[in-house]
Amino acid sequence: MKTLEKILENLEINSWVRNFSRSPHQFNKPHETDAELIEIEGNDSQLLAVTIDSVAEEINEGFYQDPFTMGWVTVMANFSDLSAVGADPLGIVISVSVEPTRSEAFSQGIAQGMEAACRKLEVFILGGDTNTTRTISLTGCAIGVVTKEKKMTRIGCQSGDVIFLSGRAGSGSAIGLARLANLPEEYFSESCYRPTARIKEGQLIRNYATCCMDTSDGVIHTLDQLMRLNNLQFILNDNWDEIINSIALKICQAQNIPPWLMLAGLHGEFELCFTIRPQDRADFLEAAEQMEWNPIQIGEVREGDGVKIKSQGRLIEIDTALIRNLAQTAGQDSRSYAKSLIDYAMKVGI
Amino acid sequence: MKTLEKILENLEINSWVRNFSRSPHQFNKPHETDAELIEIEGNDSQLLAVTIDSVAEEINEGFYQDPFTMGWVTVMANFSDLSAVGADPLGIVISVSVEPTRSEAFSQGIAQGMEAACRKLEVFILGGDTNTTRTISLTGCAIGVVTKEKKMTRIGCQSGDVIFLSGRAGSGSAIGLARLANLPEEYFSESCYRPTARIKEGQLIRNYATCCMDTSDGVIHTLDQLMRLNNLQFILNDNWDEIINSIALKICQAQNIPPWLMLAGLHGEFELCFTIRPQDRADFLEAAEQMEWNPIQIGEVREGDGVKIKSQGRLIEIDTALIRNLAQTAGQDSRSYAKSLIDYAMKVGI
Repeated sequence: MKTLEKILENLEINSWVRNFSRSPHQFNKPHETDAELIEIEGNDSQLLAVTIDSVAEEINEGFYQDPFTMGWVTVMANFSDLSAVGADPLGIVISVSVEPTRSEAFSQGIAQGMEAACRKLEVFILGGDTNTTRTISLTGCAIGVVTKEKKMTRIGCQSGDVIFLSGRAGSGSAIGLARLANLPEEYFSESCYRPTARIKEGQLIRNYATCCMDTSDGVIHTLDQLMRLNNLQFILNDNWDEIINSIALKICQAQNIPPWLMLAGLHGEFELCFTIRPQDRADFLEAAEQMEWNPIQIGEVREGDGVKIKSQGRLIEIDTALIRNLAQTAGQDSRSYAKSLIDYAMKVGI
Repeated sequence: MKTLEKILENLEINSWVRNFSRSPHQFNKPHETDAELIEIEGNDSQLLAVTIDSVAEEINEGFYQDPFTMGWVTVMANFSDLSAVGADPLGIVISVSVEPTRSEAFSQGIAQGMEAACRKLEVFILGGDTNTTRTISLTGCAIGVVTKEKKMTRIGCQSGDVIFLSGRAGSGSAIGLARLANLPEEYFSESCYRPTARIKEGQLIRNYATCCMDTSDGVIHTLDQLMRLNNLQFILNDNWDEIINSIALKICQAQNIPPWLMLAGLHGEFELCFTIRPQDRADFLEAAEQMEWNPIQIGEVREGDGVKIKSQGRLIEIDTALIRNLAQTAGQDSRSYAKSLIDYAMKVGI
């Protein structure tokens, strides 16, 4: 059995959580959901969904250089967590900490990115807080409601369930790699990186899915966490042309990197990864088609454990604990992290 | 008429807000409440109350050196905003960004301070996010509900209303001054600075108050904002022995500083400042006594504008715009801010 505790990030979360008393009104346990689910007194049918997410490392590592992107991602990261529990959004509050040296235009750029992301999702910024600090940090806290029967968690899939992605993944790893390798703009322009939370899709998925989690830390991370939480085996197909973002694929070809690595970077995007019972598959796909959305079938759940890639008829086990723990074990520096990741992928040889 | 726009902080908020579309479900306008008030679909009687607040400058300026204080204040600052709208808390989510050089014991200290604050208020941490950044920043987002009829805002007082504080103020300025002047621990030990949000008092105040706001930026700032929002004159009595925290008073005597300055620092505490109609005063005080709480009467509201101190029968106008704007006009450095503030107070001569 592959336990949650093999993952350093999970241990770090546990080291915080063990200090805190648990609310009797909280529906979910730690690790089980992308957003916290809370009972509202006097409201028997709905749960409040709440999440908080800061964007700081991505900016300080230079992944985002345009303040518009910084604002956009802050909003999307938070609503993506709401979409993964199937919530209807109520809005978001933001806390913006920027260096005193930043211009007024820079702050306005952040605000415009936040507003554009909200218009894209048809949601609203409800309020916020501004601070002057030595390092930029942008925090959002998104709030929504979900009917108790329709809420999604990361737990509940069974052997035989089909694994889906809400859209092609890999753009997060692509921008990370493009920055670290100093690739020219023709490979990956930051203005093309506008990942979008799947709020509307989540509202459909919640009628069918047996578990759901977003890909904000990369698809491999998501599959690994779902595998550990459900104590089942997750098998990923190698139809990379359908699964991976086309720009990310182009970078892989040019840099001679195996495509699946674009699913393994810690910098993900905001797709939903979810499982559907085989008997619900046709109904689900028909409903998706009606909203002109094409979810991508990426694999299946089986008895057992581990994350495996099915390639040319073989099942190749991926050491997803090694991949996830690289963020802590490869050193603080992004470049040594990326190098360790690529070294591992070359060894797997898919 | 003294407008909101004379205050640089209000202009800064406006420069953010003007970029954002407004939710049709948001009850309050900008500046009008300590927490955002949102209608919940399918729930006619309650409003959701949400606030977000980061603690960063206070740590980086060295006001807080014990991680326990940092965690404590992060929780209290957020629940204080909820108390000022009269909300019943549902919980808080937190985002913790600390430097990679900090020890495990430091993070545990933050967590213990957060948990102790939650136990004091009988509330819960619902979830969170951790990050590694170059500068520490702790953000909380507290959520609650308030019945529509009982919600409090910063607007609604009338001439003749009595101004109250939920408790003695000035501990925030005292710790700030103690740090800036390098006063020895015997004056002000950080472990004595445990300001507490007035959740339970807010739940009583909401039955009586005509307006309410917390003192997180200092009492003078609060009175100034209420004065501008209500377009009335706010008169503050000079019974400092009853109004000001005893440690703060001791520092004033030792340093030869006028006591009212302890109400004028930007680093406040978490008391509630609110107004009660004269005909409700007796009922309110009786109800307060039953919960063994002694609210402090600090002045009254009159026709006109401005914030004045009533001293020896005279009304002395305080240039509260000058005081509030010092944070921006006196330079980024806390010492030059404190010096400008003391210089102004000496000139007023109360």
